[in-house]
Amino acid sequence: MQRGKFITLEGLDGAGKSTHLTWLENFLEDKGIDVVTTREPGGTLLGEQLRALLLDPSQYMHMETEALLMFAARREHLDKIILPSLHRGEWVVSDRFTDASFAYQGGGRGVAFDKLQILEQWVQGIFQPDLTLYFDVPIEMARQRVQSVKITDRFESEHDQFFHRVREAYLQRVQQFPERIRLIDAGQPLHEVTIALEGIVQETLFN
Amino acid sequence: MQRGKFITLEGLDGAGKSTHLTWLENFLEDKGIDVVTTREPGGTLLGEQLRALLLDPSQYMHMETEALLMFAARREHLDKIILPSLHRGEWVVSDRFTDASFAYQGGGRGVAFDKLQILEQWVQGIFQPDLTLYFDVPIEMARQRVQSVKITDRFESEHDQFFHRVREAYLQRVQQFPERIRLIDAGQPLHEVTIALEGIVQETLFN
Repeated sequence: MQRGKFITLEGLDGAGKSTHLTWLENFLEDKGIDVVTTREPGGTLLGEQLRALLLDPSQYMHMETEALLMFAARREHLDKIILPSLHRGEWVVSDRFTDASFAYQGGGRGVAFDKLQILEQWVQGIFQPDLTLYFDVPIEMARQRVQSVKITDRFESEHDQFFHRVREAYLQRVQQFPERIRLIDAGQPLHEVTIALEGIVQETLFN
Repeated sequence: MQRGKFITLEGLDGAGKSTHLTWLENFLEDKGIDVVTTREPGGTLLGEQLRALLLDPSQYMHMETEALLMFAARREHLDKIILPSLHRGEWVVSDRFTDASFAYQGGGRGVAFDKLQILEQWVQGIFQPDLTLYFDVPIEMARQRVQSVKITDRFESEHDQFFHRVREAYLQRVQQFPERIRLIDAGQPLHEVTIALEGIVQETLFN
């Protein structure tokens, strides 16, 4: 059986990932593909327990502890969800994966990129997503969307400088891995974003 | 101000570590030393939350997830308790530290030793305990002592082969780091163990 494809969605909260993830799930299912949608941190029972610790606004932890916990949750996610699903021929669409660690723990918090690379190699070896969609949006727009809908978590309550650094790190990843990571301007009207998304998915995975 | 000393106690559950830790704390305080006693996994608020996940018998996790969580708790422990205390001139006595990861996650579970070494280097650089006391006890004696006193946790409920591998890994560490790690035969009567312990502490840290 052919191994499924692994697609990750990246971007700041408020970039519209959830909406696009649902669209993508439907788009793939319409093509007869079995799709598993998941998220990071989380995706497994233990991963969701770790997510609760990681997002709890009252929690204070060293930035390297945060990075290790993210990769611990990822190890579990790979073992229980991502790899078994791909081997069964299902496609996996994850709301965030390792690029988010480089953006948030690296760019945002300041953990050295080479230390993150060591953990990436430790946890996943050479395994990488087949396609990563980075939804780029100006900080102000992302912030506005998030603040209007819910109570902010430990990351969302960070200051603007933090998000600027996260976005910078994401943009750097796009430059570094142009084959795998595709940037989508998520500041456009939703309809335009969907057209761009469909074009990229069609071009990279169905040609 | 002179940096304090860092002493770690290692061994299977049932080797008598708690008793010896209390004795050591009193022994050091009698010499006018400020002593901080702590434990792993745990020692910090977050570390204790991780400990609860790690020891929960209903929890199932990949062995590498377990290793990453242990080192995440350790990173926090170093940042919040161990290093600040040592810098204040206090001595820190910890019930378990990194040697336990080599013994339990390495020997017991089967995580590759070189992968554990990568995490050790990632989390603590060249930092090592000034003295590690390994309390060696036959598996049967350790098991008997544990089973008679309490409900077993996720590690204690493992089978005998697991504990044989843990002990083997501990013994290997003793051979590998004879300067730092000192073996104490904890199968002897308590009084004899204490005499041995006092001799080693006196000889290595007060001469």
